[in-house]
Amino acid sequence: MTLQIPDERVSELLESWPVARLATLRPDGAPHQVPIVFAHSDSKLWSPIDGKPKRDALPRRIENLRRDPRASLLLDHYDADWQRLWWIRLELEARIRETHSAAQDLRRGLDALRAKYPQYRDTALVDDLGLVIELRIERITSWCPGPHALQVAP
Amino acid sequence: MTLQIPDERVSELLESWPVARLATLRPDGAPHQVPIVFAHSDSKLWSPIDGKPKRDALPRRIENLRRDPRASLLLDHYDADWQRLWWIRLELEARIRETHSAAQDLRRGLDALRAKYPQYRDTALVDDLGLVIELRIERITSWCPGPHALQVAP
Repeated sequence: MTLQIPDERVSELLESWPVARLATLRPDGAPHQVPIVFAHSDSKLWSPIDGKPKRDALPRRIENLRRDPRASLLLDHYDADWQRLWWIRLELEARIRETHSAAQDLRRGLDALRAKYPQYRDTALVDDLGLVIELRIERITSWCPGPHALQVAP
Repeated sequence: MTLQIPDERVSELLESWPVARLATLRPDGAPHQVPIVFAHSDSKLWSPIDGKPKRDALPRRIENLRRDPRASLLLDHYDADWQRLWWIRLELEARIRETHSAAQDLRRGLDALRAKYPQYRDTALVDDLGLVIELRIERITSWCPGPHALQVAP
């Protein structure tokens, strides 16, 4: 038996799950991945370019998404008990937004990030770049091997 | 301070970390992701199409990799303590192999999967498709915010 995760549980996980893996496209079209934090607000996801140390001055995901806005996001749980595996995959269209904007959806997105991650008391939510990624959800696919998987809480 | 993870620790994690996220390319070139299990052998990674329940008869990653072998793999650790985050990203070239082959590298790959995952005592390592993904490592990139991250054991 293979199940989809019920819509209600998918919504809960999009609110509460702390981490996801973002896939974007490199200039040559090859896939690129990075773990991200994100919050859900206005039916969109918001992912900061925050004050955590970076490898690059301008994160590659930003360059990639400016060139091609198509992205994939994966939320999943691994467990040694394979009855408890699950994943949620989102197909997304990204837009790079400037955090100094007064736009209400963006203000709510930043508030949602602050509310979800108490770590932003100690880490700057917005770094010198002043950018945040808006991710519009185009399609959601989910999988779990059976009903036991759904008992896993984040 | 931003650090790369020392090579020795990267090697250990490639041996022992139980899960990774594989990104491939859809027919239209958009990114696609799925969590995978994998083992390290002969300087390559091996990921099974095992007997776990599937959404699709022929997993999409197989179709994608047959069309375009470029893949990305992300191993990472999330922790509420952001000093303990880390990730390892691999750029890979994939080849779909048939498990009935007597090729020694493939036999060792399947043995490495059985040795790493005791779950394969109860779940078939090879399903009806008889396929396994060989992932040749082209480039490894890693990140952690500082030395504390390296104390995290899998």
